[in-house]
Amino acid sequence: MDSPARPAPAPAALLYYVAFSQLLGLAVVAMTGTWLGVYRGGIAWESALQFNVHPLCMVIGLVFLQGDALLVYRVFRNEAKRTTKVLHGLLHVFAFIIALVGLVAVFDYHRKEGYADLYSLHSWCGILVFVLFFVQWLMGFSFFLFPGASFSLRSRYRPQHVFLGGAIFLLSVGTALLGLKEALLFKLGTKYSKFEPEGVLANVLGLLLAAFGAVVLYILTRADWKRPLQAEEQALSMDFKTLTEGDSPSSQ
Amino acid sequence: MDSPARPAPAPAALLYYVAFSQLLGLAVVAMTGTWLGVYRGGIAWESALQFNVHPLCMVIGLVFLQGDALLVYRVFRNEAKRTTKVLHGLLHVFAFIIALVGLVAVFDYHRKEGYADLYSLHSWCGILVFVLFFVQWLMGFSFFLFPGASFSLRSRYRPQHVFLGGAIFLLSVGTALLGLKEALLFKLGTKYSKFEPEGVLANVLGLLLAAFGAVVLYILTRADWKRPLQAEEQALSMDFKTLTEGDSPSSQ
Repeated sequence: MDSPARPAPAPAALLYYVAFSQLLGLAVVAMTGTWLGVYRGGIAWESALQFNVHPLCMVIGLVFLQGDALLVYRVFRNEAKRTTKVLHGLLHVFAFIIALVGLVAVFDYHRKEGYADLYSLHSWCGILVFVLFFVQWLMGFSFFLFPGASFSLRSRYRPQHVFLGGAIFLLSVGTALLGLKEALLFKLGTKYSKFEPEGVLANVLGLLLAAFGAVVLYILTRADWKRPLQAEEQALSMDFKTLTEGDSPSSQ
Repeated sequence: MDSPARPAPAPAALLYYVAFSQLLGLAVVAMTGTWLGVYRGGIAWESALQFNVHPLCMVIGLVFLQGDALLVYRVFRNEAKRTTKVLHGLLHVFAFIIALVGLVAVFDYHRKEGYADLYSLHSWCGILVFVLFFVQWLMGFSFFLFPGASFSLRSRYRPQHVFLGGAIFLLSVGTALLGLKEALLFKLGTKYSKFEPEGVLANVLGLLLAAFGAVVLYILTRADWKRPLQAEEQALSMDFKTLTEGDSPSSQ
């Protein structure tokens, strides 16, 4: 029996939580589609409906796919580390491409309609997310996928990468909430306070977005659900430890 | 020299980060006061200015004080555990009282002006924060301060308490951002897109709020900054481990 400080891994509970996160994530995407379809006239590129491409792409790319990209190390616990890394990187690429379509959609829509760009808190947070996401991806690729970075360098960078990844994901969820609120207030105005069906649906969507963020964060932070070291990684880690006793921080 | 998996504690860096978090927190409070003073006519209880009590109290109570309450275990690393616990609990009590004043202010203002309550995503998130905060405080008090809960029970509840505390804090920051956005759009409307000084100031305030949340989260999640076990706690923990090898999960 393990001590309370390091409880036994609980893959059954982990699987339930992952399944719950996927239900929430799919509900978020479906509800965003419903909101845009029922109350905003649907989606198209060549009309005023072009705006609607923006929230749908952002929710799919920067919320659902980004969240799932963070979960791969928990879900594929027993796959080779490299396979899992490639999947993690690829999911981020898909997320980025979809989010880029969403970004182009809103700038193009603003240009056609003569609206100003980048004046709101939502847009400032969104641009921040984009820049951080891109830098994080480049850094992650250079350190962990591109050969060259030493084990020691990777070990020192890993905690920063993990923290920043979680923070960017949470900022993405927060930015989505700000955008949702903006879209509601612009269209509904004072009608929002009359409990209009669109307002209630969007509020529920907002709570689901927050819940998806919370469940992903819970899975990521639970210490006993972290990916266990595979046998060959363990051996490498031990070798490295033996080799680098007395290693200086400036060593590559 | 430590292995990369468990680096040496870095209290100097921790202190810099804590100082930075306090600068950010104070900047957030000062900027909220500036925003309300310069653009919203200041603060009073017996007039339409009563509304302004709400954002100020929420930012002081549920953002700044709540954030600081989470940091006490990192800042007072070498104090007795019980003293730190009491401080943690007390800071939450202050935060709750100040937030309660902010809550009464907005409901009272809505009643006097005949506005509807609890229709917006901001208000839904806010009520959720309040309920979770209160339940979390009661649970924390019962498990960790009130005598009676066994060491085993506390050890099992602690990770849930820590996660939920962080999540409530982040939801508080998100709710503040939603409220800020709401206040801007209600007053500025389409003028928001003209880069009005109030809009720009509020956007910067929003980014500072997010930055405060991020720095607090960074300090809390950095593994090598966790509070070390004091000598007497270590002894207790070891005794407990010896006593409970083979302990059943249902044991009190």
